[in-house]
Amino acid sequence: MKRPTATLLISCPDQQGLVARISNFIFANGGNIIDADQHTDFEAGLFLSRIEWELTGFNLDRELIGPAFEAVARPLGAQWQLHFSDRKPRLSLWVSKQDHCLLDLLWRQQAGELDAEIPLIISNHDKLRPIAEQFGIDFLHLPITRETKAEQEARQLAAIADYGIDLVVLAKYMQALSSEFLAQFPQVINIHHSFLPAFAGANPYQRAYERGVKIIGATAHYVTPDLDEGPIIEQDVVRVSHRDDADDLVRKGKDLERIVLARAVRLHLQHRVLTYRNRTVVFA
Amino acid sequence: MKRPTATLLISCPDQQGLVARISNFIFANGGNIIDADQHTDFEAGLFLSRIEWELTGFNLDRELIGPAFEAVARPLGAQWQLHFSDRKPRLSLWVSKQDHCLLDLLWRQQAGELDAEIPLIISNHDKLRPIAEQFGIDFLHLPITRETKAEQEARQLAAIADYGIDLVVLAKYMQALSSEFLAQFPQVINIHHSFLPAFAGANPYQRAYERGVKIIGATAHYVTPDLDEGPIIEQDVVRVSHRDDADDLVRKGKDLERIVLARAVRLHLQHRVLTYRNRTVVFA
Amino acid sequence: MKRPTATLLISCPDQQGLVARISNFIFANGGNIIDADQHTDFEAGLFLSRIEWELTGFNLDRELIGPAFEAVARPLGAQWQLHFSDRKPRLSLWVSKQDHCLLDLLWRQQAGELDAEIPLIISNHDKLRPIAEQFGIDFLHLPITRETKAEQEARQLAAIADYGIDLVVLAKYMQALSSEFLAQFPQVINIHHSFLPAFAGANPYQRAYERGVKIIGATAHYVTPDLDEGPIIEQDVVRVSHRDDADDLVRKGKDLERIVLARAVRLHLQHRVLTYRNRTVVFA
Amino acid sequence: MKRPTATLLISCPDQQGLVARISNFIFANGGNIIDADQHTDFEAGLFLSRIEWELTGFNLDRELIGPAFEAVARPLGAQWQLHFSDRKPRLSLWVSKQDHCLLDLLWRQQAGELDAEIPLIISNHDKLRPIAEQFGIDFLHLPITRETKAEQEARQLAAIADYGIDLVVLAKYMQALSSEFLAQFPQVINIHHSFLPAFAGANPYQRAYERGVKIIGATAHYVTPDLDEGPIIEQDVVRVSHRDDADDLVRKGKDLERIVLARAVRLHLQHRVLTYRNRTVVFA
Repeated sequence: MKRPTATLLISCPDQQGLVARISNFIFANGGNIIDADQHTDFEAGLFLSRIEWELTGFNLDRELIGPAFEAVARPLGAQWQLHFSDRKPRLSLWVSKQDHCLLDLLWRQQAGELDAEIPLIISNHDKLRPIAEQFGIDFLHLPITRETKAEQEARQLAAIADYGIDLVVLAKYMQALSSEFLAQFPQVINIHHSFLPAFAGANPYQRAYERGVKIIGATAHYVTPDLDEGPIIEQDVVRVSHRDDADDLVRKGKDLERIVLARAVRLHLQHRVLTYRNRTVVFA
Repeated sequence: MKRPTATLLISCPDQQGLVARISNFIFANGGNIIDADQHTDFEAGLFLSRIEWELTGFNLDRELIGPAFEAVARPLGAQWQLHFSDRKPRLSLWVSKQDHCLLDLLWRQQAGELDAEIPLIISNHDKLRPIAEQFGIDFLHLPITRETKAEQEARQLAAIADYGIDLVVLAKYMQALSSEFLAQFPQVINIHHSFLPAFAGANPYQRAYERGVKIIGATAHYVTPDLDEGPIIEQDVVRVSHRDDADDLVRKGKDLERIVLARAVRLHLQHRVLTYRNRTVVFA
Repeated sequence: MKRPTATLLISCPDQQGLVARISNFIFANGGNIIDADQHTDFEAGLFLSRIEWELTGFNLDRELIGPAFEAVARPLGAQWQLHFSDRKPRLSLWVSKQDHCLLDLLWRQQAGELDAEIPLIISNHDKLRPIAEQFGIDFLHLPITRETKAEQEARQLAAIADYGIDLVVLAKYMQALSSEFLAQFPQVINIHHSFLPAFAGANPYQRAYERGVKIIGATAHYVTPDLDEGPIIEQDVVRVSHRDDADDLVRKGKDLERIVLARAVRLHLQHRVLTYRNRTVVFA
Repeated sequence: MKRPTATLLISCPDQQGLVARISNFIFANGGNIIDADQHTDFEAGLFLSRIEWELTGFNLDRELIGPAFEAVARPLGAQWQLHFSDRKPRLSLWVSKQDHCLLDLLWRQQAGELDAEIPLIISNHDKLRPIAEQFGIDFLHLPITRETKAEQEARQLAAIADYGIDLVVLAKYMQALSSEFLAQFPQVINIHHSFLPAFAGANPYQRAYERGVKIIGATAHYVTPDLDEGPIIEQDVVRVSHRDDADDLVRKGKDLERIVLARAVRLHLQHRVLTYRNRTVVFA
């Protein structure tokens, strides 16, 4: 059993003494840093960091850490998040008809690879309900038409609130989310079945086949109102040849999709991803 | 010393008995097939094949093989090319200011990896002339402006004819070729410094950096009048992270470019590439 | 629905006219070849080929194809196998306590990626029985000790015969098979959790961690009496770093294992693998 | 022109406050940290870190930084190295008859990819002298036989001293270094043409071919008296198939060798590699 840790994710304008100030805050309170990483984007003048330390022996009570760190952070103009490792994030998986990413994430969660609870699956189809039942997870069937979209998104947001969801994972959910939805709940990861920015939009495998590419890919990214344009968390590729028809690309792509999505979700759950300027820093 | 071989590249409408007819032609004339590969694109209804056999012991004189095979091919509606392994293709390498692909191809040719002669380097700049001199290769400096482009392309075509060039390799030649040029000499391979179709056009590394991709690529393709839209021969990729700035992408990309271009040129020189519908079949 | 095909896998001493003789056999009987591939190992003096043609319109009845082809094959000294695509191979999956490869293969079979029936799971532990029940597959629990091994292998062979098993897949079955077993049933594929021949034997991830490698791998191979020494069908790798401890290697390796094993099983089921001299030719 | 920086590489027993103490040292002296990375091996109880900061504006004179930091380091039981970015390391490249790694490193150095001086090439053969002359680098021909090895290693060590060499790169130098040599000069990087620990020792490509592997690799490592057993810095792989004979493996491997060696040398020159327990931490 791992001992509980606290993790700070920080971004602020680059300036002297940042590492010293932050590490002093933890050291002065008796914290033992077990992982620290940082990155400076000199072009953007931005400093980003992730620091994780053991809560055992730390002199500040949990509810005081945030306010105390704010006293350090405010003069630096820093934005920050604080996470505790023994507070499991709550995921909602959204799907349409394809099951491979859903099953893969559920297996990984059962196998202990994803440190999260998964209390809710939402789908615009009823097809994958048996999987939810098999895993004992609530399943919400919310079909979407152009006319009902606004109404159903309101239901989705209500469910997110009811279940205390921290992150929505679009595990082959074939519906775009509206700007209004994302304004209210921006923590959404999507898997796109191409090597973005190549083949953004619909039917990427068919288009990859027609273009005659020799490698196909998959991309996990945070969702923004601009479809397929959000910050990329993870990508991977696999080689194809003239012997692979469009169906083969779909089949090979499925393996990519589930692995790339799982990696991205895991990185997010470990609080290893920071975003700025539509890009990510991944402290992996 | 390898014994000389003949290689047939064939494409024709798919129909029964193609493999039998073609292999019978070779067998009946005493040929020993040492490599045969085929592909059928059922959607396109097209059969494509590459067959290589030893000339030693083959009963037909070289100059009779083509006419004799035409008698087989015509009823099949086949297009075909015939190549002899002891007739070395003649390459012209075209460059601008960057030397990494040029040096790499020259080194590979010296090392015996590229079975070709390289009698001519053409550049729109004079910068890389010393490399040509070092390798004892003629260097033609043909600067290009909008006004002089047509005139210089005429000089390029004349040089191609003079030197008996079979293939032009754009080894970081930063000029587009006109439709008129390509109509007269279509055998041109280019290296594009991105994973096409992502980042077609100018400044792919800068744009890849700004998009925050986690993998970059390079693409070798035959040149067509539509820039960066020609049939893809080979692609490869390398992983990048937030720690890589645009200059790092350029540096990492250079290794990709030279390897991907070299592979594509080698495949072409071994007559392993057939094109149809803006795609390639690579019998590798 | 794909139309049924026949597939011939052939190996014989290299000699003139092999492609012609084989393709003539098919052409003369009205067969339409849809895929043909060949390889000659000149060092071994061996010709290997895979030919697939449509049964629709073929003039020979199925039960006559073998005898008729034997008349062609015998003078060539050829060994051959004949397979029909509408006769689904029957697989038995063998496991111990880890479920990731088992679940993966079962999911792929349901998704139509593996053209096979899976009527039987055998395990030396009882732990994964619920998965067998969930998928409606018979589960045979045969614990193995040094004393009971011979007796249990007899039971395994009896079950293989009872169920008409064509291929046994060791999907993380942590027991070696005896030479006696393999002499009676040699069609067995194993997944080894390292990049063979590195880290053959026990605890490959721990040893990879201790050696400080920067890449780990997985290997699918046919099983021979020499443990981890059989013909390799497929391998793949993933990058690791000093940040990955032995547990991370296990986790990353699991993704490799299931993908590499699934690819190898699929290639075998499509009759794309020939073995000779402890090597494989994979007509992929 | 990049501004000069100082880089500290530190390893010490893990304890509280390490990041704070080290970053305070730099902050208190007016330093601006531009890169910091750390790793804790909890099993080994070891903390390792790399910190780079700008010398411009740093209040300590260069010659005082070391002594001042020693006052911080000694109580921590830390081992450390200090490097200044405007002091270029001096490399000696050692070769036998193959030129690909040598040429590749020389090109990269000319292209600005390797921030180092290369004043000396040593070889046990005379074959590559022309390359040394072309690049204006001193070439020392020191043939080695069993009888002359000790004597020639003495000459090698003298040359290393004369030229002020910081790092020896075995760029396909087909001679083992004695324990005595390494005791006197341990900073040596080698490229091994296999995916270690697979195919350690002689003729790895031939053995890889015979084993029928589907992927080959190359490994750059620090040299230790146990041949091919030193700490691994970098590895990479490439896919092969039954169509590749042993010569193809050699050819494909050469591309791996030069890229993997170049990456390892670059990482070392940027002081990004720390070793402990025969492993490396690579702060890349």
